[in-house]
Amino acid sequence: MYQKDEILLERFGDHPTPFYYYDGDALHAHVSSLLARLHPTVRVHYALKANGNVALAGLLRSLGCGVEIASAGELFVAMEAGYATEDVLYAGPGKTVAELREAIACGIGCIHVESVRELRLLEDIAAQTGVLVKAAVRINPDNDLSGATIKMGGVPRPFGVDEGQLDDFFKVLEDCPHVYFQGIQVYTGTQMLKADQILASFGNTLQLAERVQAQYGVAMHTINLGGGFGVPYFAHEQPLDMDHVIDGLNELAEQTQSRIPGVRLIIESGRYLVAQSGMYVCRALYTKESKGEKFVVADGGMNHYAAATFRGRRIRDNYPVRIMRRQSAEILTELETVSIVGPLCTPEDCIVKKAELPPIHEGDYIAFPNAGAYGLSYSPLYFLGHATPAELLHYRGEVHVIREHGDRTDLLHHQRMIALPENVR
Amino acid sequence: MYQKDEILLERFGDHPTPFYYYDGDALHAHVSSLLARLHPTVRVHYALKANGNVALAGLLRSLGCGVEIASAGELFVAMEAGYATEDVLYAGPGKTVAELREAIACGIGCIHVESVRELRLLEDIAAQTGVLVKAAVRINPDNDLSGATIKMGGVPRPFGVDEGQLDDFFKVLEDCPHVYFQGIQVYTGTQMLKADQILASFGNTLQLAERVQAQYGVAMHTINLGGGFGVPYFAHEQPLDMDHVIDGLNELAEQTQSRIPGVRLIIESGRYLVAQSGMYVCRALYTKESKGEKFVVADGGMNHYAAATFRGRRIRDNYPVRIMRRQSAEILTELETVSIVGPLCTPEDCIVKKAELPPIHEGDYIAFPNAGAYGLSYSPLYFLGHATPAELLHYRGEVHVIREHGDRTDLLHHQRMIALPENVR
Repeated sequence: MYQKDEILLERFGDHPTPFYYYDGDALHAHVSSLLARLHPTVRVHYALKANGNVALAGLLRSLGCGVEIASAGELFVAMEAGYATEDVLYAGPGKTVAELREAIACGIGCIHVESVRELRLLEDIAAQTGVLVKAAVRINPDNDLSGATIKMGGVPRPFGVDEGQLDDFFKVLEDCPHVYFQGIQVYTGTQMLKADQILASFGNTLQLAERVQAQYGVAMHTINLGGGFGVPYFAHEQPLDMDHVIDGLNELAEQTQSRIPGVRLIIESGRYLVAQSGMYVCRALYTKESKGEKFVVADGGMNHYAAATFRGRRIRDNYPVRIMRRQSAEILTELETVSIVGPLCTPEDCIVKKAELPPIHEGDYIAFPNAGAYGLSYSPLYFLGHATPAELLHYRGEVHVIREHGDRTDLLHHQRMIALPENVR
Repeated sequence: MYQKDEILLERFGDHPTPFYYYDGDALHAHVSSLLARLHPTVRVHYALKANGNVALAGLLRSLGCGVEIASAGELFVAMEAGYATEDVLYAGPGKTVAELREAIACGIGCIHVESVRELRLLEDIAAQTGVLVKAAVRINPDNDLSGATIKMGGVPRPFGVDEGQLDDFFKVLEDCPHVYFQGIQVYTGTQMLKADQILASFGNTLQLAERVQAQYGVAMHTINLGGGFGVPYFAHEQPLDMDHVIDGLNELAEQTQSRIPGVRLIIESGRYLVAQSGMYVCRALYTKESKGEKFVVADGGMNHYAAATFRGRRIRDNYPVRIMRRQSAEILTELETVSIVGPLCTPEDCIVKKAELPPIHEGDYIAFPNAGAYGLSYSPLYFLGHATPAELLHYRGEVHVIREHGDRTDLLHHQRMIALPENVR
């Protein structure tokens, strides 16, 4: 997504900052193009955790995606976004009995079982309600090919069932007549930028599926290959060669179809689908100097876009930032060193550290591209009590407010005052 | 705060986890004792950012604290907690015009001005409304005595006005007839555990106040010494010797009173007041093994208590954790190595990493003491869509629900769906 400043500023209109802005047309084009190029046996499920906006989730549904959820709350959002229950996959290591009950009651598409214990729970609940529940097993494979270097031994993980524990799993499955086994799921990595690694991991999962089918005599309806398609955030990162991934995946799909007729392949993706169509936008409130260093204080920061701070980041580097100005003064091309902080009274609220940027004026828009995934959802929204950001979606010639700014009553939502004795010292 | 398991479990009753639990009696005793020992010229203001619960804030008010806020949202909470506006201090580097207008309109106790630009804004707004606004200047002093080693030169900071910029500040102040100057504020550090360092910093601030008074001929009504009183989180940390701090502070207060008659000293404290009376409590949903390592999956984690994870922490160490069991089986004293993770599908959601703990059973309570400050407020509550935690306050023989569990509609609060074309691929 690259739009000229004037076009963006026109779309921002007089919407107060801070907000997230999404380019719906770019999102549409990006996702449609991906779906159109995939082998017909491959289905893409949107990982709602990346961005829980109901309108964005609805847009992805209208384009043909399924959805992957990780809590009863996300199930609710998926339903509001119009997904059919059979298009919902339910993942997560900590599903409660209440959540499982609810997912089973609504006829969910597939539950990814992460332990033998969860399998037994599922059978109990399904038996109580007298229904069949579709389930797949998440496997922690012995071969992990996802990393930067090929790790030949698996790592201990809280997720899924170890490959070495499958005997036990399938033995218990025999005693679970209410569980309709769908297949396997493997999710080995995230934010992967190397096509060959991704394909190696997919190939590994497909081999594992065949072994499971042969060894345990179960029908394999779906093979969920996970996702992990990365998005470059920094200049030194090469974008993922998605054409290469798609070609390789389609080839694998073709081979798999001939070996396991009727099987469907599933891809899960959050970041890759939505990251690049989103932008976090705040404005410069104050510019100041301290001991020779320049600072800009913006009206939003870690409370809205924690990923941009140096708090949750392994790579200590600045996210790219874009300065836009509505006023007549041109943005100079001479750069100066500046740090941009948010409005919070904590040194953690630094969103740009000593970067070379054109001189920033009060009122300038400060925009972070690639913010469509793990932006708002990943942030401590109520820390220090500022209003939560709005979300704007430009789609087909119109700017939609898909989330209104929060207000101060949000802070007191669900809170209760108590009667207090006065002057009790 | 240490209560026997049985007492705590009785108070937890059948409240579903996860929740924060506060011992109101312990909080009362702790804060009353602090206030009672302070010199009469010293006032304590509660930094609401540490914990924005309205009932806790109300309790602190009833004990005699003022409050320090950092946004219009926190102002609203402070008002609901019953604080008089004159007992409210307003701090923060990114106050908006709307926020300043509102604070001035309600007759706020004092605004901490962080730049010359903000001072001018304040004057403009006060002049427009024809009122006087009380304001202090936050100073970034040349001498910073707060650190582990004494730094003789100040550091560039986005907060406050550099000591070297005070000439400019007080020159502009002369042209601000609607700003009623109160004094200075200095806040140099946080989570300080060494009494002598704190006292050195206070002494430094008091000297600075005298210099400012002498040099610029302004009356000094309040000197805000900041806070930064630390709380030990780990076994290797020595608790702050608060008796020593209080003795030293009272002596400074006595001296200051004789040199600047009528001046009031202000202390701000968030963490020190509330941290130790709070506990984050979740429960074990699943226990599992992977490649020889033991894991417990709990029903809450980084979404509710991000500070316990390894995401926002400089010191990569486990927080102390306490296992409690309601069932008859005793908790064994033999330890085993275990990691505790929350319910989120991310490796970041690890709240205890390879700790030696008694064997944990499903259903056991997993409690993190010292969680009263920067717990809920600091966490990405909606990440992955689980219900927000409740807050329970035990006070004077009663358990009050001071925050109800969130529900799934919270996720959609302020969101708007849009009409979408169907099958638009």
